[in-house]
Amino acid sequence: MTRTSEDLGRTPVDLAEAPAGLRLDPGELHSSVSDPVLTSMTTLNDIAGRYPDAVSFAAGRPYEGFYEVAALGRYLNTFERHLAEDLALGPEAVRRTFFQYGRTKGFIHHLIARHLEIDEGLAVDPESVLVTTGCQEAMVLVLRALRTDERDVVFAAYPSYVGFLGASRLVDLPVRSVREGPDGLDVADLARKIRAARAEGLRPRACYVVPDFANPSGVSMPEADRRRLLELAEQEDILLLEDNPYSMFHAGGERLPTLKSRDTGRRVVYIGSFAKTAFAGARVAYLVADQPVTGGTLFADELAKLKSMLTLNTSTVAQAVIGGFLLENGLSVERATGREAQVYRRNLRAVTAALEEHFGSRGPLRGAGVSWNTPQGGMFVVVTLPFPADDAMLEYSAGRFGVLWTPMHHFFAGTGGRHQIRLSCSVLTPERIALGIERLAALVADRTRSDRI
Amino acid sequence: MTRTSEDLGRTPVDLAEAPAGLRLDPGELHSSVSDPVLTSMTTLNDIAGRYPDAVSFAAGRPYEGFYEVAALGRYLNTFERHLAEDLALGPEAVRRTFFQYGRTKGFIHHLIARHLEIDEGLAVDPESVLVTTGCQEAMVLVLRALRTDERDVVFAAYPSYVGFLGASRLVDLPVRSVREGPDGLDVADLARKIRAARAEGLRPRACYVVPDFANPSGVSMPEADRRRLLELAEQEDILLLEDNPYSMFHAGGERLPTLKSRDTGRRVVYIGSFAKTAFAGARVAYLVADQPVTGGTLFADELAKLKSMLTLNTSTVAQAVIGGFLLENGLSVERATGREAQVYRRNLRAVTAALEEHFGSRGPLRGAGVSWNTPQGGMFVVVTLPFPADDAMLEYSAGRFGVLWTPMHHFFAGTGGRHQIRLSCSVLTPERIALGIERLAALVADRTRSDRI
Repeated sequence: MTRTSEDLGRTPVDLAEAPAGLRLDPGELHSSVSDPVLTSMTTLNDIAGRYPDAVSFAAGRPYEGFYEVAALGRYLNTFERHLAEDLALGPEAVRRTFFQYGRTKGFIHHLIARHLEIDEGLAVDPESVLVTTGCQEAMVLVLRALRTDERDVVFAAYPSYVGFLGASRLVDLPVRSVREGPDGLDVADLARKIRAARAEGLRPRACYVVPDFANPSGVSMPEADRRRLLELAEQEDILLLEDNPYSMFHAGGERLPTLKSRDTGRRVVYIGSFAKTAFAGARVAYLVADQPVTGGTLFADELAKLKSMLTLNTSTVAQAVIGGFLLENGLSVERATGREAQVYRRNLRAVTAALEEHFGSRGPLRGAGVSWNTPQGGMFVVVTLPFPADDAMLEYSAGRFGVLWTPMHHFFAGTGGRHQIRLSCSVLTPERIALGIERLAALVADRTRSDRI
Repeated sequence: MTRTSEDLGRTPVDLAEAPAGLRLDPGELHSSVSDPVLTSMTTLNDIAGRYPDAVSFAAGRPYEGFYEVAALGRYLNTFERHLAEDLALGPEAVRRTFFQYGRTKGFIHHLIARHLEIDEGLAVDPESVLVTTGCQEAMVLVLRALRTDERDVVFAAYPSYVGFLGASRLVDLPVRSVREGPDGLDVADLARKIRAARAEGLRPRACYVVPDFANPSGVSMPEADRRRLLELAEQEDILLLEDNPYSMFHAGGERLPTLKSRDTGRRVVYIGSFAKTAFAGARVAYLVADQPVTGGTLFADELAKLKSMLTLNTSTVAQAVIGGFLLENGLSVERATGREAQVYRRNLRAVTAALEEHFGSRGPLRGAGVSWNTPQGGMFVVVTLPFPADDAMLEYSAGRFGVLWTPMHHFFAGTGGRHQIRLSCSVLTPERIALGIERLAALVADRTRSDRI
């Protein structure tokens, strides 16, 4: 739910005019095409598309104020120089790197390893890095590898990133929900759920977790819980799939260690992405899978075999652009995204300040039963409303009050979150945020008034 | 088997030195990671890597003599101008197109539709075009959609493109082999195999076919067989998955119609790729899926839902580069690839001429029992040898005689082709081809001599 659709010259298809011939039925296609997890994004984009002038807290896409198209060609040049000068490749090898099929694991793995060392204090062997076509492909590869038959099962805190739920649907791997509290994933609940699954004859394989500023809830796991989670993974013999798209956008002050940086037992497959830091369109992410595999390879090599049948190498021009981006910033993504981080911090504060103004202890709607959390970073705030916040309510909110948000039930695969909404503030200005929360307050006033009637 | 691995700064992993911690066993991972279809490419690349000075008929990658790194930045500029001038997008919309998450079906669909009209005489609705991360993703999407449970089955001529077999393994969809003759896929045999599968309680869904200059065999289907195949698809209610990476590289003269151009019953999902025409590293391909789906969408839209969980939109920079490539060539790929087509034609002639020289009716090895086919286009020739041509023989050929080729058994998933080899001539010069066939003749002389002892 962190993307938007861009339509260039779309002409609607009139099926009534479709000539005779084959007509497919969704029932003849894999169940995922009809799964709410995959269709909810379309539904939400459709609603958003009908209200282009509404203040949108729905779009989770990164802030775009600092993007320059001219930078793309410059990144390509910077990366070309890196190949020729730093890696001493001859002109033919440089040309081949840009144009030909390449190493399936990617060719910016050494730069990614340096970035992880600089920004996350993480020492990784570049050979354990697999560059992927966005974090979706990284998740699909790991889940595909772990799903051997119908007994395999994975776990994730609910609410969960829709992209993870969708990836699991593609490979027919069931996800069992784990409770999430204000401190993120509830480790004790995960332990219970793992044991329950084993008692049913299932094979727990992994738990997906976003320890820093999770999407959608914005919550982070305290250090003690991270340690307990690593211990539990060891005890229960499962992998942890650590997804870290937002750690650069912290509130300042001390940062918590990634799971991977404390992973002495090689329990963690780490997923990083350049979607929110460089740019989303590139579709460049990576995973670190340093687990040795019997036979002398790394887990990253086995995943690369699967990738060779899914997309082959990640697009060379996309990798080169991200390589140039890293090189121009001294391989520090934190340095590269300093301006964006300031925007997100400012906007997060603007959201919580405006919520306080309307719904806080001195606000006009203080008795309406609206509450929210205060994430220490990222781009999301979760608001609990005193009435169900489903897709119909979103449509009403957009049409009547001009404000869009994301119903949280989409992140629960339909099992919860009926009174909650996610507010994303990544692409707004403080003025638009103030206006949007004012409109949200008008919706709350309207709904609570009519409830009393 | 049409790719090579490019290693930048690879340091081998010494697992003996791996610290304690989790160790995975391939038996705990999805069966595809141990499937010969996925491991054969690694094996072949390993052998090739040990003999860098051998004449290689193994590499199926496109000719790279006309590539210029500087063209990439120019293509980006050309596409940027197209957005601003032809599509009249404002600066913000242009920037968003390059940097943000975009339309899952891609943003060069309208250019691809024009190319198909110009080069293939194919009229397609741009809305039925789905831009994909290479043809691997296109195949995985279609196979994933069609695989609903263990009764589904698809068909393909054997020998078959390894990428198709690999894609089928990823989604656990069995492929049944169909006989291939000098005229390509044997339609009567497909009919028999479909009926046999139904008799077993299976559900035939589709047949994969490369009508023009197939990889690996180089054969093409005559027009009458194409018509019969379309009729059979209608009768048996299956889809045809038409893959067309090589049609631009024909021998000249009259071209045969694509299946899609005769597809009045909407039985064909068409796959096109820019890997061999623009460049392989981009990872840009597409499919045309114009089948209406109950509920008002096209099959392309349902496949886009799956893609939104696999890789999202195809990389924006990669699409923009291919868009610029198309625009600079008046949307004609045939015009863009005129020089490459000449190289491939010249090289194909050089291969068959050299084979004739050594093994033909006046050649010194005329009695050795070597035969070959004479494809009318593409980049592959198949040679039948009088002795088994397995991986051990390849190693012997490379080490003793300095010539590399691809054992055909890899394209049969281990069920045939034991005496056949594929010669790819895409990246060689006529001089290297003559030298390579001379070395192949030396291998044949050596093996037939020792056989007689």
